[in-house]
Parts: sequence; C-alpha cells; structure tokens
Amino acid sequence: MKLVRYGAKGKEKPGLIDPDGKIRDLSSVVADISGDALGKKGLAKIAKANWEKLPLVKGKPRYGACVGDVGNFIAVGLNYADHAAETGAAIPTEPILFNKARSCIVGPNDDVMLPKKSVKTDWEIELAIVIGERARYVSKKDALSVVAGFCICNDVSEREYQIERGGQWMKGKGCETFGPLGPWLVTTDEIKDVQNLGMWLDVNGERMQTGSTKTMIFDVKTIVSYVSEFMVLEPGDVITTGTPPGVGLGMKPPKFLKAGDVMTLGIEGLGEQKQKVIAWQ
Amino acid sequence: MKLVRYGAKGKEKPGLIDPDGKIRDLSSVVADISGDALGKKGLAKIAKANWEKLPLVKGKPRYGACVGDVGNFIAVGLNYADHAAETGAAIPTEPILFNKARSCIVGPNDDVMLPKKSVKTDWEIELAIVIGERARYVSKKDALSVVAGFCICNDVSEREYQIERGGQWMKGKGCETFGPLGPWLVTTDEIKDVQNLGMWLDVNGERMQTGSTKTMIFDVKTIVSYVSEFMVLEPGDVITTGTPPGVGLGMKPPKFLKAGDVMTLGIEGLGEQKQKVIAWQ
Repeated sequence: MKLVRYGAKGKEKPGLIDPDGKIRDLSSVVADISGDALGKKGLAKIAKANWEKLPLVKGKPRYGACVGDVGNFIAVGLNYADHAAETGAAIPTEPILFNKARSCIVGPNDDVMLPKKSVKTDWEIELAIVIGERARYVSKKDALSVVAGFCICNDVSEREYQIERGGQWMKGKGCETFGPLGPWLVTTDEIKDVQNLGMWLDVNGERMQTGSTKTMIFDVKTIVSYVSEFMVLEPGDVITTGTPPGVGLGMKPPKFLKAGDVMTLGIEGLGEQKQKVIAWQ
Repeated sequence: MKLVRYGAKGKEKPGLIDPDGKIRDLSSVVADISGDALGKKGLAKIAKANWEKLPLVKGKPRYGACVGDVGNFIAVGLNYADHAAETGAAIPTEPILFNKARSCIVGPNDDVMLPKKSVKTDWEIELAIVIGERARYVSKKDALSVVAGFCICNDVSEREYQIERGGQWMKGKGCETFGPLGPWLVTTDEIKDVQNLGMWLDVNGERMQTGSTKTMIFDVKTIVSYVSEFMVLEPGDVITTGTPPGVGLGMKPPKFLKAGDVMTLGIEGLGEQKQKVIAWQ
C-alpha cells in the first residue's frame, strides 16, 4: 500500500493511493498514519478496508509528511562508501548514528528554508525506514518484521552547523524544514528488494546525485537491528539511512543551496519530492 | 507550581503537589502534563484551578516522568568546567548538543536497567529545562518566556557506547530507562534563581557528585536561545543542561554502575530521585 497524509499543514488527514493513482480518504479507518496504525494490526485494518468504498479526494491537495507524530528521527551517517570518500571520511566500521529534530519534518513538496545567515545548506537523497512495531534488540533476521514501510527523506544539512560548530552533527541536521518525508509511505510488501532501488537528486534540473540502495555499507536489516541495541524503537520512529555520492559538500569547489533553487529527488517505487529553497523568514 | 504525573507506567494522570505535599488530581483541568498544558495559557488554567477542590490522591502512587509526550530530548555536553576537566576534554567555546532517544524516558524512581553486556554505565545529575512555548531564534533576554519549568534529569550514559562505538554520542545516551525525569516539573515562578541551585548524587549512599548550577559554562538562558537557532523548540521538548564533576568516567580508576546499586540524587527546590540499577532483562 501507498499511505499518505494530505491537506493543510497541521491538519493532515490519512489517505491511501488507489490503483488509479488517486487519493482515497482513510479517516474512517484510522485517525492518522502514525503510532498504532503503523503496526501489523493497523496495517491489516487498512488493507482490509475496501478502497473502492473509501471517499475519493478531489483536487490536488498538499501532501504532508507521510508519517505523523514521529517519535525519534534517527539518521545514519556516511552509509555509502562513495559518499564517505567524497567527504574525505573513512568508511565506518559500524553505523554512525545521529538525530534530526522531529520539529524539522515537513511535507515532500514544502519549501525548504535556509537558516538565518546560512551559507552551507546541502541536499541528501535518502531511503527512510518507518518503524511499525516496538523493537529492542531485534535480530537482523527479524528486523523487517518491525518495519511498516519506506519513504524518501531529503536529509537537508547545514554543513557549517554540522561540522564547524562544535562536537556533534545534530546542529546542522534538524533546522526548520530540514526533513521532507514522503510523498508516500510504501509498505514493505510492495518493495520487492529494498537493497536494489535506484535513487537520484537534481538541483535546478541538473543531476547531482545518482545512486542505488545496493551500495549501502550497512543494509536496512543491519541498521534496524543495530539501532535497536542502543534504544527502544517505537511505532512512528523514522530512520533515514544515509546518502549516495553527489552532495554539495563533496564538490570541488563545494556547492551549496541558495534561495530560488529547486530540488527534485526520487527513489524507485517511492515516488518523487520537489522543494523550492527559500530565504530565512 | 509543582506538577507531576502519577500512576502506573503508560497510564499516568496529571497532578499537582499541594501546600501539604500531597498529590491533587488535575485530570479535570488538563489531559496530561504535556504539549499545550505547558504553555502560558495551560499553566494559567492550572494555576486558576482551586487546588483545595481538586481530588486528593490517596496512598503513595508511582511518579511517572513529570513531562508526557516529550518531543525532542536534547542534552548539553560538558557544560560544567570541572566536569570537562575530569573527562579530559577542552572547555567548549559553544554548547555541545546531542540527543537522547525519547523512548529512554522513565519515572524518577523507576529502575535503571544496564544495557545487554554493558560494563560502562554511568550517572549524571542534571538540571533539565522543560519547554512550554514554540520557539525559534529566541533571544537570551526572552529565553525564559518559552520555558515552562525545570526538573531533575539523571542523564544516564553508557560510556563505551558513547565514546568507543563510532562518531556520535547518542548511542550511549538513549538506552532504555536512561532518562529519569522528575519527580516534579517546577514552574519557573517557583525558582528564584535557577543559576544558584545546589545539586548532588549518591551511589549506595556515597556522595559522588556535588555541584551547583552557578558553575555552568552556558547558563539556562544562553542554552535555550542557542538551541533555538538550530531547531524549532516545541512545547514538551526537554533540554538537559550538563552535569557537574563526579561521574564514574572521571574517577581514577573509572567506576561504573552494577546491578544492585542504588542512585539517589537531588537538586535544590526540584526534589529527589532514587533508582535501583538492575541487570538487563
């Protein structure tokens, strides 16, 4: 299934994408695409609802982030060997984890705002994992059983804040609007092989990133299992899994976003995002 | 006001501590000590309720974490000069920020569980700030206006996970039960000078940490203002502000927690916590 949240910011309703590509309203089935709705029982309830009987949503509403009430928003750093190389970093021997503030989450096509005085805002196309079941110390073998599905995340990053402002990366990762998620939360059953999905990102129509989830250093199962050793994962947690080569920081000279730029990005089977970059306001 | 959440885990009810030190049930006034209830309007509504008319809670119920539905759980590292020195780190020139997973939050007197195979679990008495109003780029001057109040946080830390497992500190900071908060959320009006509060932590009755918030490198106003430059703060976010000297890591040789140990800790005006350390289960 392709699950969505649609409507005005802060007032999103749950929906699903029907076989014709239209949005059907799920409000009569679940309150939101969040928490319990993401677990096995919740997804089964949605699957059981007859989509033909669900109200067709008219027009072209805004997409909100495809997950509501995200708990922990965790990210994996340097998880593609080529990306580690372009940033000058060593290939990690175990996953590097950091947090994005959950208040940075926006819809897939919402504007991305440059922080005040920012000069080093960068893009990162990523595959994000949406957790559906509580998990602690889950094995690699069972890891996918706690996953509700996948979506695109643009792990927007301010490199000065991330790297030059002391200590930990999170300063450059959770700024307002730095976490577009969606358009769809695609349930695991619809993704044949999550480790073989093409991905790309353009800035102003110019291809910047091209990659595939098959070059991840740590795969989805490993990441979920690994994270669950350090914290309890809960329904609605999101783990974004790192970016392939082609970020602005890796270019010679480095290239960063400016107001008026447009990012478009996509992952095979997970749809596309498009964000306009705007100045701080 | 001293606000509390009391009752069984996951079923906590809101309450306040009356002038006799008894819990009064606030369920008829607010749904939880979280979100909107922490804002100016919410706190005014609670203040206006006549405590004498609120039901007296019988017996000695468990205290839950004094804030519900915490959004971002942010921490400041090395924020006391003496503590920085004992860990061998330089005094930071700007606040070091990291995240604790919100799933680590527990009540002030709940058991603290050692992670599986952990050998370096450590204690940290800290003053935590509870955010009451949405804030972005708030000035130092206005910073306290977005704060609902303060509470004790034991920023329990696994030093191997934090320091020896690659990259970022959060791996050792958000393990299950690593975030006792409470017993009370004390509103700002009850704290005369937040930068002059004594604090202490004992392990098995032996004094380990003694300090005062007056030796913070970055004070509460500076921290709130600073964090709000990097992310939007929301009602229910918690920022824990660093620990004074006396952690196990700083001892020669280092000393860490083992199952059966008991931590007791307190901050002037904010009450006390007591946690039994238990083995992984």
